[in-house]
Amino acid sequence: MSADEAVSSGTGAHLVVLSRGEALRLLASVSLGRVGFTQQALPAIRPVNHLVDRGVVVIRTHSGSALLNHSLRSEVVAYEADDIDPATHTGWSVVVTGVATRVTGAEELARYQRLLTPWSGAAAGDVVRIEPELVTGYRLTTTP
Amino acid sequence: MSADEAVSSGTGAHLVVLSRGEALRLLASVSLGRVGFTQQALPAIRPVNHLVDRGVVVIRTHSGSALLNHSLRSEVVAYEADDIDPATHTGWSVVVTGVATRVTGAEELARYQRLLTPWSGAAAGDVVRIEPELVTGYRLTTTP
Repeated sequence: MSADEAVSSGTGAHLVVLSRGEALRLLASVSLGRVGFTQQALPAIRPVNHLVDRGVVVIRTHSGSALLNHSLRSEVVAYEADDIDPATHTGWSVVVTGVATRVTGAEELARYQRLLTPWSGAAAGDVVRIEPELVTGYRLTTTP
Repeated sequence: MSADEAVSSGTGAHLVVLSRGEALRLLASVSLGRVGFTQQALPAIRPVNHLVDRGVVVIRTHSGSALLNHSLRSEVVAYEADDIDPATHTGWSVVVTGVATRVTGAEELARYQRLLTPWSGAAAGDVVRIEPELVTGYRLTTTP
């Protein structure tokens, strides 16, 4: 999101760029997002649950093994959450880009497993931390 | 989504793999999704509007220029849409992977511009077609 894109238009909603703090606050206000990563050299997206813990995005998902496959200890991912009304085209979207690492510490793992409910329990062990290096976001509003 | 992931668990929702037809039908039932692509060698995600036109996913977005930048005529992207209840963890998610190409034909462009409303009008000219080569999807349900 460049500053230029914050310039609103006459025909659609106004795009207002969010600060990093505001973006992380909005991200923490919802529990569902989508992680974007590279799988076999192709872009991939999966919806997952998240929480924001002291500025770090933590996700838990059955696709964790696909996210950090081929014995990678870490990789860069994009994480997006939004709350956009498809009818009015108002709301917000936040994208965090950063290094994803599987949580392996027993105590930390147990804590996140308590806090995050996976959608399917079958392969629910994977908890992944995303360090937000780049945080972008915007609000779509009908008022200037 | 491998067949193994369709095996349900005792603790979470049941994951049922969708057929290609059912997945595209569900995708067509909503207007908001997220496109995943590679930008400067990093994974990126943007929420956009879409429609499904004769089996092809068509999106219109102010981020179209980021999606097909550096004079690329086409590139592989992932497109995801879902309708998941964060409280009950039921709903569905569909991911289409395929080659994205900018629509340039005047007649086709005008037709899609009528059908798809961009969120911000400033740079609303970009319409991108995604040919669904790989279509995956699942339903999360509390009943077997």
